[in-house]
Amino acid sequence: MADTPFVEEVELHGHIIDSLLLPKVLDVILTRGGSYVLKDIKIGQRGSDPTHARIEVRAQSADQLQEILGIIHDHGAIPVHVADCETVPADMDGAFPEGFYCTSNFKTQVRLGGVWVDVRDQEMDCGVVVDLAAKSARCVPMADACTGERVVVGLRGVRVFPEASQRRTDLFEFMASPVSSEKPKGATVREIAAAMRRTRESGEKILAVLGPAVVHTGGSEWVGRLIRHGYLNVLFAGNALATHDMEQALYGTSLGVSLDRGLPAEEGHEHHLRTINTIRRHGSIAAAVSRGKLGSGIMYECVKAGVPFVLAGSIRDDGPLPEVITDVLQAQREMRRHLPGVGFCLMVATTLHSIAVGNLLPAWVKVACVDINPATVTKLMDRGSVQTIGIVSDAEPFLRSLVNELQLN
Amino acid sequence: MADTPFVEEVELHGHIIDSLLLPKVLDVILTRGGSYVLKDIKIGQRGSDPTHARIEVRAQSADQLQEILGIIHDHGAIPVHVADCETVPADMDGAFPEGFYCTSNFKTQVRLGGVWVDVRDQEMDCGVVVDLAAKSARCVPMADACTGERVVVGLRGVRVFPEASQRRTDLFEFMASPVSSEKPKGATVREIAAAMRRTRESGEKILAVLGPAVVHTGGSEWVGRLIRHGYLNVLFAGNALATHDMEQALYGTSLGVSLDRGLPAEEGHEHHLRTINTIRRHGSIAAAVSRGKLGSGIMYECVKAGVPFVLAGSIRDDGPLPEVITDVLQAQREMRRHLPGVGFCLMVATTLHSIAVGNLLPAWVKVACVDINPATVTKLMDRGSVQTIGIVSDAEPFLRSLVNELQLN
Amino acid sequence: MADTPFVEEVELHGHIIDSLLLPKVLDVILTRGGSYVLKDIKIGQRGSDPTHARIEVRAQSADQLQEILGIIHDHGAIPVHVADCETVPADMDGAFPEGFYCTSNFKTQVRLGGVWVDVRDQEMDCGVVVDLAAKSARCVPMADACTGERVVVGLRGVRVFPEASQRRTDLFEFMASPVSSEKPKGATVREIAAAMRRTRESGEKILAVLGPAVVHTGGSEWVGRLIRHGYLNVLFAGNALATHDMEQALYGTSLGVSLDRGLPAEEGHEHHLRTINTIRRHGSIAAAVSRGKLGSGIMYECVKAGVPFVLAGSIRDDGPLPEVITDVLQAQREMRRHLPGVGFCLMVATTLHSIAVGNLLPAWVKVACVDINPATVTKLMDRGSVQTIGIVSDAEPFLRSLVNELQLN
Amino acid sequence: MADTPFVEEVELHGHIIDSLLLPKVLDVILTRGGSYVLKDIKIGQRGSDPTHARIEVRAQSADQLQEILGIIHDHGAIPVHVADCETVPADMDGAFPEGFYCTSNFKTQVRLGGVWVDVRDQEMDCGVVVDLAAKSARCVPMADACTGERVVVGLRGVRVFPEASQRRTDLFEFMASPVSSEKPKGATVREIAAAMRRTRESGEKILAVLGPAVVHTGGSEWVGRLIRHGYLNVLFAGNALATHDMEQALYGTSLGVSLDRGLPAEEGHEHHLRTINTIRRHGSIAAAVSRGKLGSGIMYECVKAGVPFVLAGSIRDDGPLPEVITDVLQAQREMRRHLPGVGFCLMVATTLHSIAVGNLLPAWVKVACVDINPATVTKLMDRGSVQTIGIVSDAEPFLRSLVNELQLN
Repeated sequence: MADTPFVEEVELHGHIIDSLLLPKVLDVILTRGGSYVLKDIKIGQRGSDPTHARIEVRAQSADQLQEILGIIHDHGAIPVHVADCETVPADMDGAFPEGFYCTSNFKTQVRLGGVWVDVRDQEMDCGVVVDLAAKSARCVPMADACTGERVVVGLRGVRVFPEASQRRTDLFEFMASPVSSEKPKGATVREIAAAMRRTRESGEKILAVLGPAVVHTGGSEWVGRLIRHGYLNVLFAGNALATHDMEQALYGTSLGVSLDRGLPAEEGHEHHLRTINTIRRHGSIAAAVSRGKLGSGIMYECVKAGVPFVLAGSIRDDGPLPEVITDVLQAQREMRRHLPGVGFCLMVATTLHSIAVGNLLPAWVKVACVDINPATVTKLMDRGSVQTIGIVSDAEPFLRSLVNELQLN
Repeated sequence: MADTPFVEEVELHGHIIDSLLLPKVLDVILTRGGSYVLKDIKIGQRGSDPTHARIEVRAQSADQLQEILGIIHDHGAIPVHVADCETVPADMDGAFPEGFYCTSNFKTQVRLGGVWVDVRDQEMDCGVVVDLAAKSARCVPMADACTGERVVVGLRGVRVFPEASQRRTDLFEFMASPVSSEKPKGATVREIAAAMRRTRESGEKILAVLGPAVVHTGGSEWVGRLIRHGYLNVLFAGNALATHDMEQALYGTSLGVSLDRGLPAEEGHEHHLRTINTIRRHGSIAAAVSRGKLGSGIMYECVKAGVPFVLAGSIRDDGPLPEVITDVLQAQREMRRHLPGVGFCLMVATTLHSIAVGNLLPAWVKVACVDINPATVTKLMDRGSVQTIGIVSDAEPFLRSLVNELQLN
Repeated sequence: MADTPFVEEVELHGHIIDSLLLPKVLDVILTRGGSYVLKDIKIGQRGSDPTHARIEVRAQSADQLQEILGIIHDHGAIPVHVADCETVPADMDGAFPEGFYCTSNFKTQVRLGGVWVDVRDQEMDCGVVVDLAAKSARCVPMADACTGERVVVGLRGVRVFPEASQRRTDLFEFMASPVSSEKPKGATVREIAAAMRRTRESGEKILAVLGPAVVHTGGSEWVGRLIRHGYLNVLFAGNALATHDMEQALYGTSLGVSLDRGLPAEEGHEHHLRTINTIRRHGSIAAAVSRGKLGSGIMYECVKAGVPFVLAGSIRDDGPLPEVITDVLQAQREMRRHLPGVGFCLMVATTLHSIAVGNLLPAWVKVACVDINPATVTKLMDRGSVQTIGIVSDAEPFLRSLVNELQLN
Repeated sequence: MADTPFVEEVELHGHIIDSLLLPKVLDVILTRGGSYVLKDIKIGQRGSDPTHARIEVRAQSADQLQEILGIIHDHGAIPVHVADCETVPADMDGAFPEGFYCTSNFKTQVRLGGVWVDVRDQEMDCGVVVDLAAKSARCVPMADACTGERVVVGLRGVRVFPEASQRRTDLFEFMASPVSSEKPKGATVREIAAAMRRTRESGEKILAVLGPAVVHTGGSEWVGRLIRHGYLNVLFAGNALATHDMEQALYGTSLGVSLDRGLPAEEGHEHHLRTINTIRRHGSIAAAVSRGKLGSGIMYECVKAGVPFVLAGSIRDDGPLPEVITDVLQAQREMRRHLPGVGFCLMVATTLHSIAVGNLLPAWVKVACVDINPATVTKLMDRGSVQTIGIVSDAEPFLRSLVNELQLN
């Protein structure tokens, strides 16, 4: 091992000690079988000072070195010897060239003609397509790759700015880590309300991703208030949320359960299906509203307030409703279309849609994910959404408290 | 099998069809390998009429017949040919004679000198000790059996009145069956509030069994209001609930987490321990209140309002607090002492204590069990507590809604 | 209420007492505010005898009566006065006429020209389209309704045969009800193995619905053996299962976690994406197999054994793989195409796909649903799949035991 | 704030960067409202080199400074200016003086007469009692404090060696962090088997903490093999595990469920109670074994192999069995008595006992905690047991795989 020639020098910059980036990088090197020499380190003497480190990474094979460099790259470690990024033209539609650079959800730059250029439409698990003439770059999902587009391959000339390399300044991020039902709910609700107020004040949009339990537990009224008061500007959901909501408006039940009496209406699923059929007969939710058939609920409020909604299809859907986008790639594209300008995302009681939207959001959009099942919250955070705060709580009571905290009457 | 001589005739009476008792009895007979002949059945023509059935149970062996009779006995099926119950004197302390009759939590009678006598102190998993002279009978836990006491053995002369043999008249029982987080919470809270009001009006006591998440999630304030307004008359809890509650009063944290800021106080467990130490130094919670050391929280409100509390010990306890009863049998006895007069029991966020108390309660005391973990709720209901309504929800928001519904300001 | 004129007589036939159908029907009538008179009841004297009941249902309004009749109809209660079913021509594509009869997953018949005709393609939440000339009827999903087709409306001339009206003869159904992790696993595995053997011997197909945790936990090897030995004849899954499986074949990791070493490969998601890209570049999974790129795993075994698979898309999919059907309605149709002949369905570690497939299956196809999360199992069973046996267990160890029980080496 | 005089210099030594100790310490200082100056830092250039850091901690009040110092002390940060520890004589039995030093589960030393002395019986949440004459120190639980004993107060002269300050060298610790059911089970089982083998080879004891689901799921056979082959040397459990185990031996059921047939024996709880009564009549489990009444199962194997067991009581216990220690403090003492020499602890399917034992174990005893409920595993790890590896899996299949991996036939 003495004369290992598989060596590369990398740099790390920022709040890399208290943000745990440096420790993570060193840990990756060691647990992958490599070793390191800290060539130079300038530690910020005070909390506000950034730290700069230069690390020589050593490995026992070229493959091992590449594996290590690939992982630590996502933590912000970039080779000292910079060069322009390498691109290869896509040789077919719908797939990238082998070796394509695979994106994270962190802010990313690529080096083009000696200049670092921001990658637009940042999204994890995409490729980066560059326009050499325009000196621009953007994230492109695999399915949307087109023959001839120049796709970035390898790590050279790509740098990533993990969120964690900025100082943790507010409570929000601090609460992000542990998922537990045994937490003070009042403080959590206050934090989320504050984040929503800040988002609104800054002119950014609040996106809600809602599952059917919002309606089952009786939370429609509270969502309606969020919409009417401008605290919900885009809605992503599925066929189930919309149908249960409109079933409640039309029949007073949600999946057949009466919200007033709590009594299970055993024929429940029939109401569900008749609701879908009725809306299909009207042609659209908006038509049902304009003709006076639908007069309350979340979907009604969206139509009235002009809040755009994307209803994405799933294989367990009945019907579905006319607005449901049954092609999942098309649904992803439609969701992406609404993301620019979103500053905060509230996810309540949905696993599938939460994870789908989590995949689309850049890391700098704050997310609050509320679910009574800790597994949902954990799953989302495991996906690499460091910006997510997880709250294990019940949908209706949570929304009630949130509306109360925001003083929406 | 043609000439099976292992036969016994049993009777069932009450709302045995819509309460599912008759179907259950027939099902048990068949699945245990027996067979039946319905000798006589008079079905109530209307919903309010009781049904009477006489069933010949047939088995292929004496053991099988006894097994079947033992199970259906708990569903209210009693032999047609009645006789006095059989008793055997206990031959040692702390154990029953072999073959002792094992109690359920349903109203039970034993036949003494030709007369059916109510069994007192009804509790599941006990023996029945009779006083032949006084013609009385009572449930006795195994550990409390005394040499010479006459203990009922076998099923003869014992009859059980399952709750289900009475008509289901209100929503409460109706909601008892399915455990789900996806239910309208408003209706549930209204039902529980109504049951609590009825209990108070009827002069019965409301028992609360609380776990530490009540404090963690920020629910102390709401429990305090229940106490001050007379909606909580006895408290069962453990060392943890009481300590977290007093830690909040003394330090503003619960297991080190600040309820106001939500910020984890990492030294958290230290506050916890110092709280216990302080109370131990005072000698009792009441002493800490009277000396002005403790001025808020659940335990303070209990002391102020004269609400009795039983703190039962567990092997994971730190300290524990002076009032904690470290011997579990002694703790069970102390809890039993407070049960007479209890008409409603509210269990929030505790598995161990909920199951322990569920074991002690007769089936006619209504129980509402609130937990964010469906497993806790299911476990309690599996234990045979048909009178339990399970609510999968979050402690603080639930209590807040309950206090709101009861209009306790 | 004395002179309520809202009355209808219904009949119930079969093992309606021990199967709980009669009690359920009476319960529905009462809890919906109606009342009943049992006009006639002939109870089977022995376990094997069917019972016949004639019930006069009384309500206080026409609506209430219709509501009650609608619910009890699904439990097999049919009006005494029979008539042909009523049909109305569909007035548009993709929606039914108002008042359409909404199907259950039980065997159903409609009366055409005085004759009871079986409804084909039985599936819940569909409409029934009849061909009056051919005297035939079939279930049609809402989205597939065509203008002019005659659709059954109302309950007249429709009868349902709930599974429960047949005797419970084997353990399988008996275990169906309670969902718990605290059950003897050996007995459960034996039961499932026996059901799979019976299915194979009867010439029916075994359908598997698998989620990605099958691969994560290391279960691919066991699924491979099921395929090779003919115990898995159709596979339904999503993009994730197939990708993780092929990632393991190509990189030795599953979502970046090495199955051998258990070490998280932090770049994990990259392997995932590169796997999809590689297969997309090959054009299909089969092409990757035939060119020798893919040489092991579940998908490889399917291709080799000619086991058909349906990969249904979802909005959280990366890529997706070329075979993934991105339109969810199309995916449902493709799944339906494979259902005829399926006699047993094994669902492991997937919520979305399990519920989707549960919706498509008729009630007489036995289903075993294995998941480590009790909520998944409960959800499926709540959807009305009485034929489902739920097992709360871990994917890999369960599959290992199953393969062992089936002695597949 | 410019001239803040609340300053203290602390030192940190070891693998404090890749073990995350330094980042944690800096983070605590900042989030508690303090600030820091890194006076000196010598970073290990290579992975094997330790790092040494000297940090000036600044706060805005004496209280804040003490709070910060208290927290970072548990992460190994000790004041530069050392002095002997301060002690105060206990002024009463069963409680410590105010300000007592509260222990962690990490190796700890106190300075007595200028010399650093190891604290014996390391256990979290205790006080430290010193014998000045003998220059010795030991952890003492609060309830066991005696008047006159010298108790350490404050942080001076106390230093802590967090486990994390040693390099992470094996997979075991690496897997410790994330709790998920979606992990390769084979690798996990191999790791645990290897740790058990190492423990046995080093002459240390293996402690098992088992809950009743071990028996319910059918795992007794596998536990028996561990005992017979010397892989289980001490058993901690409760009344339930022992009763279910012996119920299986006596009746072939566990809580009334037949392990062979899976059929619920509805009278189940009766078997449970009769088992307890029988053992109480024999006087002890050992007596039941020696008289031939008990001939199989976990408790039988323990008696035969001379494996000591501690059965700790809880308030939900029926009976309990004669060996159950009903006083929880006494039970804790008895468990402590068996801890010396324990090198590995396997916890399966028990929340209460796992947490209780986790509280008693020093941080250097490796723990594997297996439960099907992720909440149990998370709870244990939240309690500060960094040495715990959590496995979300099913009891019986896990134990079967473990026994298989250890090749115990």
